[in-house]
Amino acid sequence: MTYCLAIQFNAGLVFCSDSRTNAGPDQVSSYRKMHKFSIENDRALVLLTSGNLATSQAVVSQLGRDLRDKSGFNIAQARDVSEIADYIGELSASEQQKYSKVGGPDAETFDATSTFILGGQIGAAKSELYLIYPEGNHITASEEHPFLQIGETKYGKPILDRIIGPEISPDTAMTCAILSLDSTMRSNATVGPPIECLFYREHSLNPDENYCRLEEGHPYLIEIRQDWDRSILSAVERLPSLSTLLGDAK
Amino acid sequence: MTYCLAIQFNAGLVFCSDSRTNAGPDQVSSYRKMHKFSIENDRALVLLTSGNLATSQAVVSQLGRDLRDKSGFNIAQARDVSEIADYIGELSASEQQKYSKVGGPDAETFDATSTFILGGQIGAAKSELYLIYPEGNHITASEEHPFLQIGETKYGKPILDRIIGPEISPDTAMTCAILSLDSTMRSNATVGPPIECLFYREHSLNPDENYCRLEEGHPYLIEIRQDWDRSILSAVERLPSLSTLLGDAK
Repeated sequence: MTYCLAIQFNAGLVFCSDSRTNAGPDQVSSYRKMHKFSIENDRALVLLTSGNLATSQAVVSQLGRDLRDKSGFNIAQARDVSEIADYIGELSASEQQKYSKVGGPDAETFDATSTFILGGQIGAAKSELYLIYPEGNHITASEEHPFLQIGETKYGKPILDRIIGPEISPDTAMTCAILSLDSTMRSNATVGPPIECLFYREHSLNPDENYCRLEEGHPYLIEIRQDWDRSILSAVERLPSLSTLLGDAK
Repeated sequence: MTYCLAIQFNAGLVFCSDSRTNAGPDQVSSYRKMHKFSIENDRALVLLTSGNLATSQAVVSQLGRDLRDKSGFNIAQARDVSEIADYIGELSASEQQKYSKVGGPDAETFDATSTFILGGQIGAAKSELYLIYPEGNHITASEEHPFLQIGETKYGKPILDRIIGPEISPDTAMTCAILSLDSTMRSNATVGPPIECLFYREHSLNPDENYCRLEEGHPYLIEIRQDWDRSILSAVERLPSLSTLLGDAK
């Protein structure tokens, strides 16, 4: 399983991803799901991947090869981020179609689909954020829906619903993304560290400026989890109690 | 859809359920999913239902009829709560087997299964809490897993994971249950009010002592939601920031 998310707000974009992949409980490995592409002072793009690992890897490799070989369409040629989302959608759909079900014990459950989040900025245009479906079509984030998630999305959604808005600070967005990931890791053992965190500062055109990778047991992860548990327990205890109402409607 | 949960802790049991049912987006209704059975000073039981509404209603009716008619096995005869869990499991499984797929547009998606949470206390024994699967088998809550959920369980799980333990107060348990439901209602439109809330006080043998029903727009629901949004935003803002680490591992 996987959990990746991205947040769009006035100051830029925040990306956060786990690194666990599993093909059954006895085939658990660690793979990066955050990929950066950039051309200095011109464009910066971040791609998050979920779903079939072979499909995701094939798409990421092809993006790199096309850019290196300047062959046909590539990231350097796109006029806006949505063109790159189209291009990734096409690569992903055609990659999935190459492999059809064969016989064997896993034939029934074979699933080559991958889902992607693409965010970034080209030139002077505003940064953009897209979720690319396995079919190749995509949706964008909006002011009413300022974050996108892929993989195991439910556990980590409530905190985003309650906090994320266009005016939040980069620190709040990043903390909230990490808490969203932490909630998910706690509830689903197939989502796990290392966690990759990236803040893309609007108009920096540089995806490497604010990036870090937190290994399992990193002091920051331990600290934020303990602090958060204490904070929300005391916040719950301070909320108005239902006691006065209980018994009202026997 | 449905979301119901129950929490077991030293002071007793907390139950919380939504009331929305839907069979497609244009068939949304409101039905109680919390059912109380009691014999004064002898036993008190609370049943939460999810899944196929016809199956749930048939099981609840049969429980009532068997108790009224003193026919065969009934709630009054059980020596412990697990016996009642067995009995509900049998009623539920046999009810589901009555109806098989017929033709028509919904044949493929027909699903008669129901899942239940049963909690309560008989005589001087400790209170018990069970989750009854559609097949009729059941699991109990434990000190390591002090809450049970049915229906749309993921959105509301993280707050329970972080807060619930044996020593919490009834107020904290109830507030936490309502927040768990509120998070779910916000993320899934097929979970909705009225919300039913019940605190069963250990050894009271009375399920009606602490009960209330909160309609949509109830001032308490509005107040707790606003307070909570403010509390967790300020809690997130007080957490240590990742800023100092970002850039460490470019």
